[in-house]
Amino acid sequence: MNEFQLIDQYFRRSTTRTLLGIGDDAAIVRPTRGYDLHISSDMLVAGQHFFRNVSAYALGHKSLAVNLSDMAAMGALPRWVLLSLALPQSLESWLSEFSSGWFALADKHNIELIGGDTTCGPLTISVTILGEAPVGQCLPRSKAQAEDDIWVSGQIGLAAIAVKNQTKRLDIPSEVLAECQRKLDFPTPRVSLGMALLPYAHACLDVSDGLVGDLEHILEQSGVGANVYLSKIPTCNWLDERREEFMDCLLAGGDDYELLFTAPACYHSQIMSLATVDCPLTCIGKVSSQHELCVYDKHHHVIQFHRKGFDHFTAT
Amino acid sequence: MNEFQLIDQYFRRSTTRTLLGIGDDAAIVRPTRGYDLHISSDMLVAGQHFFRNVSAYALGHKSLAVNLSDMAAMGALPRWVLLSLALPQSLESWLSEFSSGWFALADKHNIELIGGDTTCGPLTISVTILGEAPVGQCLPRSKAQAEDDIWVSGQIGLAAIAVKNQTKRLDIPSEVLAECQRKLDFPTPRVSLGMALLPYAHACLDVSDGLVGDLEHILEQSGVGANVYLSKIPTCNWLDERREEFMDCLLAGGDDYELLFTAPACYHSQIMSLATVDCPLTCIGKVSSQHELCVYDKHHHVIQFHRKGFDHFTAT
Repeated sequence: MNEFQLIDQYFRRSTTRTLLGIGDDAAIVRPTRGYDLHISSDMLVAGQHFFRNVSAYALGHKSLAVNLSDMAAMGALPRWVLLSLALPQSLESWLSEFSSGWFALADKHNIELIGGDTTCGPLTISVTILGEAPVGQCLPRSKAQAEDDIWVSGQIGLAAIAVKNQTKRLDIPSEVLAECQRKLDFPTPRVSLGMALLPYAHACLDVSDGLVGDLEHILEQSGVGANVYLSKIPTCNWLDERREEFMDCLLAGGDDYELLFTAPACYHSQIMSLATVDCPLTCIGKVSSQHELCVYDKHHHVIQFHRKGFDHFTAT
Repeated sequence: MNEFQLIDQYFRRSTTRTLLGIGDDAAIVRPTRGYDLHISSDMLVAGQHFFRNVSAYALGHKSLAVNLSDMAAMGALPRWVLLSLALPQSLESWLSEFSSGWFALADKHNIELIGGDTTCGPLTISVTILGEAPVGQCLPRSKAQAEDDIWVSGQIGLAAIAVKNQTKRLDIPSEVLAECQRKLDFPTPRVSLGMALLPYAHACLDVSDGLVGDLEHILEQSGVGANVYLSKIPTCNWLDERREEFMDCLLAGGDDYELLFTAPACYHSQIMSLATVDCPLTCIGKVSSQHELCVYDKHHHVIQFHRKGFDHFTAT
């Protein structure tokens, strides 16, 4: 199967919002008048961003999900996507599974695959996503203000538990582990939440590298600090009872792809009204005018950690 | 040097046509009203798309050039670009050279780097480019018509000679080889030509996989055939005298990144007026209503070749 047959078989779908799709030198789309274009690229490398034993179906889902999550973090509606794949060999069963996982999520978000590239090489997935938001509206990282509430969607730390369990078996009930693995393999991009936050949130990003590290990006770009409470970070029941033991998963575990955002306290009830059973919203702290991030444990002591890497955590 | 320092040092530049550039979850640009958006992605893998000994400066140039060439082939003005890099290690000298080669070409085309990704992994370069053309105007592959002239820009086959010389030393004057190597390493994207062709050309693409193979893409998508003359294919003096010997380089050599296009014969003089010293334009044949591509040698015999691969050429 050559490159063109592979694309026809697994990736070419009919499109309705694309003027020229896969198969030419470029795709052509018509941006909506009165909207800005939001664009993001992510590259996933085998062994770096995902375990080599992950299923192709999950990888199809995840490689699109992390890009949809970038659009969610901007408050943009994702519309078009390009997929570039380097594959060690053309494995039909792998491609079939990968594209199934990809399109299951793409169809849910009504997003069209309009181009990309396929080539031979070490397994690498590079995705570019395009979305739209009304002119001048977005959720940047740089607009957090002192006294803003700090919010996070969903549950934090579960994906990190699944990662941790890959290198060192944890003593963890199988149903909890399954839930953690599901969070790692099938993150839910919070697209509708991001768009709904446009009128309320000052700053926003998606938690991919860890709650504290990602919050620091917002604080640095906004020139502010924050106070955050470990006990308030939303998580599952099992982790809830082990917050001190798995502090690293809660504070520095990546791969959650939940939205972390700040908003004025006056919007508290409007934001709470956006919460759903599948997407709870939790206020975990407040932005401060001090240029410092303090995370407090249950005794209201500041948790000390290395700012870069977060590989050593100790409560004082 | 971590990822953020690396980006700041080598890739972050001030932008003037970008609302939000590198450093957030997505970049934001405002598409021009009345224009369509053209988007293309290319992935270059070490050992597949470039020799591992190629200079980082050349690689910076080429990885952008091949994407600019895609915009040229659509008749679009390239405006924004995203660069995703997987690197085995963060080598400052490599990054410095790569970014110099990249920005030398980017500045020439007034194109802004607005995002991307950097990660650890086998050397892989994935670029997404965005351009604009007036609503409804483009140069697709599918609109060639019988009786169209077939044109090609620049010179063909030189890059293929340089590739051939890497695996098997050719008996070739050093200045000719240097010129061929320059064509391979520093292709010139024909951006202004592509835009100038919008009123005249029916179908267009850039020659990346070989003249005949790429022409076949146009013919297949347009449902037509063609007659092409080996003796008319523009090349350098040295290759001109060795057309039969290096027929494979002329007909099936890739990496030229010249524009191959078809246009009605009535526009012959308008198209000739677009030619320059640095970018000659040559008519090499005609589109036919027969669903067949015939390439003729100097004796007006049809050259037989395998349609897939073109690895065996014999004149009959």
